[in-house]
Amino acid sequence: MVKSLLIVNTGDGKGKTTAALGQVFRALGHGFKVCVLQFLKGTWKYGELEAAKRFPDLLEIHTLGRGFTWRSDNIQQDIQVAKEAWDFAKQVIASRKFKLVVLDELTYLISYGMVDEKDILECLKNRPEGLHVIVTGRDASSGLKDLADLVTEMKAIKHPFNEGIKGQRGIEF
Amino acid sequence: MVKSLLIVNTGDGKGKTTAALGQVFRALGHGFKVCVLQFLKGTWKYGELEAAKRFPDLLEIHTLGRGFTWRSDNIQQDIQVAKEAWDFAKQVIASRKFKLVVLDELTYLISYGMVDEKDILECLKNRPEGLHVIVTGRDASSGLKDLADLVTEMKAIKHPFNEGIKGQRGIEF
Repeated sequence: MVKSLLIVNTGDGKGKTTAALGQVFRALGHGFKVCVLQFLKGTWKYGELEAAKRFPDLLEIHTLGRGFTWRSDNIQQDIQVAKEAWDFAKQVIASRKFKLVVLDELTYLISYGMVDEKDILECLKNRPEGLHVIVTGRDASSGLKDLADLVTEMKAIKHPFNEGIKGQRGIEF
Repeated sequence: MVKSLLIVNTGDGKGKTTAALGQVFRALGHGFKVCVLQFLKGTWKYGELEAAKRFPDLLEIHTLGRGFTWRSDNIQQDIQVAKEAWDFAKQVIASRKFKLVVLDELTYLISYGMVDEKDILECLKNRPEGLHVIVTGRDASSGLKDLADLVTEMKAIKHPFNEGIKGQRGIEF
């Protein structure tokens, strides 16, 4: 049985976006066209954005969201930005231009109640044949986990930020 | 405080090598020279090996180990191969040619008792200044976790192989 996969990387650990990045790297090696949509600005960092430049023929990256959080003073405006971001994602998914779409930090749109979960699940479920999707973010909803083929929880056992070491260029960003 | 990091990706989940791959991708974007040492043959797959070809100036990959397991009929020969693999790794670490070295599936050499854990910990602890090291593999020893700056456990919550879906080109390999 060959089918495309819906993959969810969740948990409080560091590897969620990084593992997605690894999966992108692997897919690029197969010559897959890949689109990365960042629902939180700043999660894809200098390093990966530079490395991505070696794949101009295959890889598209779009930043759709706000800063490091979706919580701001202006909830109505946040919801508007979130809805527009999700509409863009739906177009990308429907476009049939890609074999892998990464919805980085999408889980926040659901957990903050900014986009209807049912709409997201429906879109993912009815995605074009052959399209793999990776969703990352903390607290993936149970609906999303139920729909997914592969769910991995990244658990922080030990983190250098706990010990006062700052993020290292090339490793953390 | 700026220091180089020892990172351990462990657990029974899928993301260990994949997250390391993402970290490699990020480091390459910073122009870091990176060396990947595979202690189990076959964990770095077609996709990432092809993608790596876009970084001939920065990335070296070596396969040192046996097949998918270190358990064979010929224990003495396995130990010999493991010791030679680790000696090679030590040379790479000491060479000062790289800013990131990935020791993929190194944990098996410790957990199967093939290489002295103390020797490994000593080498990692006394590595050249500025060298980041990522170790992956199940069942990371407590000595390794204690020494590490960052430990993440990848936990399989749901896996498609459980449901009879075979590995997907570009995603699993």
